[in-house]
Order: sequence, then structure tokens, then C-alpha cells
Amino acid sequence: MSTLHQDSVVIDGLIISKWGRPVFEDMRRAGLTAANCTVSVWENFTKTVAGIAEMKRMVRDNSDLLTLVRGVDDIHRARAQGRTGIILGFQNAHAFEDNLDYIEAFADMGVRVVQLCYNTQNLIGTGCYERDGGLSGFGHEVIAEMNRVGIMVDLSHVGGNTSTEAILASKKPVCYSHCLPSGLKEHPRNKSDEQLRFIADRGGFIGVTMFSPFLRRGIDATVDDYVEAIDYIINLVGEDCVGIGTDFTQGYGKPFFEWLTHDKGSYRRLTDFGTVQNPKGIETIGELPNLTAAMEKAGWRESRIRKVIGANWLRVFGEVWAV
Amino acid sequence: MSTLHQDSVVIDGLIISKWGRPVFEDMRRAGLTAANCTVSVWENFTKTVAGIAEMKRMVRDNSDLLTLVRGVDDIHRARAQGRTGIILGFQNAHAFEDNLDYIEAFADMGVRVVQLCYNTQNLIGTGCYERDGGLSGFGHEVIAEMNRVGIMVDLSHVGGNTSTEAILASKKPVCYSHCLPSGLKEHPRNKSDEQLRFIADRGGFIGVTMFSPFLRRGIDATVDDYVEAIDYIINLVGEDCVGIGTDFTQGYGKPFFEWLTHDKGSYRRLTDFGTVQNPKGIETIGELPNLTAAMEKAGWRESRIRKVIGANWLRVFGEVWAV
Repeated sequence: MSTLHQDSVVIDGLIISKWGRPVFEDMRRAGLTAANCTVSVWENFTKTVAGIAEMKRMVRDNSDLLTLVRGVDDIHRARAQGRTGIILGFQNAHAFEDNLDYIEAFADMGVRVVQLCYNTQNLIGTGCYERDGGLSGFGHEVIAEMNRVGIMVDLSHVGGNTSTEAILASKKPVCYSHCLPSGLKEHPRNKSDEQLRFIADRGGFIGVTMFSPFLRRGIDATVDDYVEAIDYIINLVGEDCVGIGTDFTQGYGKPFFEWLTHDKGSYRRLTDFGTVQNPKGIETIGELPNLTAAMEKAGWRESRIRKVIGANWLRVFGEVWAV
Repeated sequence: MSTLHQDSVVIDGLIISKWGRPVFEDMRRAGLTAANCTVSVWENFTKTVAGIAEMKRMVRDNSDLLTLVRGVDDIHRARAQGRTGIILGFQNAHAFEDNLDYIEAFADMGVRVVQLCYNTQNLIGTGCYERDGGLSGFGHEVIAEMNRVGIMVDLSHVGGNTSTEAILASKKPVCYSHCLPSGLKEHPRNKSDEQLRFIADRGGFIGVTMFSPFLRRGIDATVDDYVEAIDYIINLVGEDCVGIGTDFTQGYGKPFFEWLTHDKGSYRRLTDFGTVQNPKGIETIGELPNLTAAMEKAGWRESRIRKVIGANWLRVFGEVWAV
């Protein structure tokens, strides 16, 4: 691990791995200061509350490695204590159900990032794998409440029309926590240059992912291709609103991907990723220091590396979470 | 009560009154053979199951007046026994939540008509009071399942795009259970000539309502204006796919309308009806025989009256409920 990696704030904008000690140990191996950890996708309110409780139990049971993040101070504290800060996040606002009161309740429970839709239509808008009619009236109410209670709006898996309208509706910065540019590869999940500029121009944030099916070279990609994708986006929008969002799915196998890629977890198939294989050099969370090394190898200035590997996320979280 | 009314099958395609003995007694006074009775609007699965149980309890407790309808035989039986058949219906598929299995469960409970959306967006499509992006992929799956288990698709409060696509998607007749023509009055809830022809041309059904805010003469309307509206639609689509759907809200006051006209029952206001006042001559359910009398006064042939007052609904229910 390079000195630069070691003394940087390292924040991963999206991990959805199989939560448990092996993953948590790998997070420490990675020198990860904090990560937005998915605790809800297709689950309803009740199941999501259970999932949050389960995650908090794991944080307590693994307190030698972890600490819960409720604010940016907790991220600084995690760093000082050599622990990894767990940021609770959803990849779907389905858990809000039809109840705006659940939003503050989830904020109280510590939820700090929520993606509005996951792949398909919900009460708020529509995901990226079907025709998208835009942000609903209820969606406008949801965003206003998320702004109020300090939950960041994530649009990674959200459709283009809903995303555009959500970016315009939010009074606080929103993000694509984990996306790739369609300028390098066309895919319904990837964002066009226009979309990337649109969110950045309005104070939003872009976490770059490395999910190989969406990378230019697919499963042949290496950590250098990940750096290339980040570079592509920085060239479009500058280096101050860009971070990482790896989308590590460590510990999960085929049944998990089947659940993710069928509507509501069990209905029609929405997409088929084929082989899921992380880029060489960064196949596991613990190899995250190789990303910093690859940035150094690519000739990035130290200040840029520090921003992208964590400082930018830290700043924008501070802006959104302040209430 | 005219002999014609008395010896006709009289079916009301939509009533959402305050369920209880006073309304049930008025249904008998009306000579009502059967009615699609709303037991869910904004309620979720759990609350809807409770509402169904409550309605069934009332049917048992008032078995001198009522009987539950599970098939058309029950409607014939209701008529023979001088009771009113209660058809369980929803005005929103919100109660299906994200679970296709709930659809068969509700069919098992006796639910026979379900409107896909109520006024706003849900997982299936969008209602008539906001921009409508059309039928979702999940919506297609919902309709296929409703077709399979024999629940009629109702589109009265559904948006134009979702309605068009639902009409095309359904393999069984669908309905506007309670609507009025925008040819007589422009309103987001009213249907254009084109929409009325579209559903009729594809084997669908139109129940005509009498909700005064949507009638040409508003609160000055009488039962003759109701006949005029039915006549208007028959002139467009013929007399074989038209029935009545009064939308009686008997026993309810302002809080109920506030609940109906706010998204999910409690969020932003979607519409404001102003004074709700049924047409003169048919202000209460018990006055329903005046509708038959008004049809006779308007010079309708007996065969037409019998069809529109109930026989058409009976036929189409038989087609949809057969599984």
C-alpha cells in the first residue's frame, strides 16, 4: 500500500457485498475509510428496517473493524481510529413505500444515501431498464423530504427522464454514486456525456464504477481501464465532483444476481450481465490500494488522487447531510 | 318503482358509499341486484385484507339484505332471493404492492374488479391527475395475472397512455366502470370520443357515472342529464357495452373527499371537486328507479333499458370472471 493511499481519506460511494466479517476484514485491508453500504434494494419498509438492524448488529459485533457513520465527523473519527465507517444506503426508495414519514424515520436510523429507483418503475419515477415517464408528483415530495432530512439522492440506476427532473428538483447535490460513461461503452446503465455534464453543472456528484459488463473492454478490463473511465469523466466535468463507487458484490454468487436482475427480485428478467468478473488488479475490496497505485502510474497529480479517492465524497456528503 | 325496473337485473358498476346498514337498506330500496363496491383505494395489502374482512362481516350481519358475489350465478341468486349482491372491488391496485401472488389471493377472497391506478402513479401505471408515462413492465405482468384469475381491469381513474396500453395488453374485456364523456364536458377524469371508441372497439365496457362535477351542467344536473350522458356514449359505441357506474358516495362527508383527493390519502392535493351534489332525482341510492323512469321518459326501448341498467354488466362479468 502506497503512503499516498495510506494517508488519504478513502471513500467508496457504493458497495453491495455480502455483509459479514470476511468482507469487513477486506475493507480494512483496503484501507477504506468509509463506504456507502447497500442495505435495501427490493425490500419493503419492514424488511428494510430488519436489514438495517442486522447491519448495525454486525457493526457492533465487528467494532474492532467498523463504526457507523451518521455524519462526516464519524468519517474523520473512523480514519483516526483505523476503522471503516459504514454509511447506510439504499439502492431503491421502494422501502419508503407510500409513506413520506418513513423518510425521516430512515434518516433517524442512520440512512444517508438513497437511490430513487432500481431498474424499473416505482411510485417516484422509473429505473434505467424500462421506458421512463419521468419524476412523479410523489417523487417531487420525496426529494423535498430527503433534502430536508439530509439523505442524498442517488440516480445511478434511475432512468434518464427521472434523473434529469430529479437533478432539477433537488435543492441539494445529488449523485450518480456508481456509473460509467456511455462515451466508452453504450449500455442502458451508462451515462452520456450530456447527462454527466448536466448533473455536474448543477452541483451534482459522479461516483465512477468498475462493473466490467459496463466497461469498454468488458471482462478483459484491468484496474487501468477503471482509471481510464474515471479520467474520461474528469475530462468532461473536472476533478472536483468525481469519486469512486466500485459496486463490489464480494461474497455473492448467481442467486444474488438473479434476484437483482429480475423486477422486484422475482418477476421478469430485466438484464443479463453474463459473467461478472471484476477488473484485474482490483478483483477484491482488499486490492483497492491498487487503484491508487494505478492513478499514480497514470501520472495523476497527488491532489487529484486524494480528491477522487475520497476527499470529494467527504465534501459532498458534508453538504448534503448538514441539516 | 316501474314494473320494468322491478323485473330487470339492476347492476351498479361502481359504488363507494359508507358501508353499513343505512346504505344497504337503500340498496334494497333501489331494487339493486348487485353492485361493485369499493373496499380499497389508498390502502396497502394488510389494510385491504382487513377492509375485505370487514365488508364480509357486514354482508353476514345484514344477510337479510345482502349476499356476496363470487360469480354471475350469485347475481342470479341475489335477484331470486330479493337481496343485493356485493361485488368486492378496488379503485387502486396499490394493495397488490410489489407482489403478484397477492392478485390470486385477492381473487380467492372474492375480489372481482380492480382499477389499475387511482389518480397518480403506482408500480403499474399512472392515474389521470398527473403526467402519464404508460403501462410499466410490471403492469403488463399484473394484467396477465388478473386475466388468469378472473379479476376485471378497471381504467376509470387511470391516465390516457396507461389506459390505451392496458386495453391492448388485456386478453379479457376491460372497463371504465364509472366515467363520463369529455364530449359533454372537458375534465381530466372524462374520456374523449376517441378513448370511448377505442375501448369499445376492443371488446371493452363503459359504465357511465353521474358525478356532478364531471357532468355538463355540474351541480345543476338532474337525472335527465345522466340519461343524456349515457345516450351520448351509446350513440358513439352502441348499446351493448354500456352500463351504469353511479359512484354514489352516500354517507360520506368532507374528510372522505379530502382523503380521496390527496395523493396516498394525505399528500399533495390532486383536484378539488367543490360541492359534491348528486343530480336531482337521483340524489340517493334508493332513488335509482328514477333513472329507469328517466330512460323510459326519454323514449328508450325496453330492451335498451334492460341492457344498460344491468344485463350488459352481467354479460361482461360472466366473460371476465370465467376462469
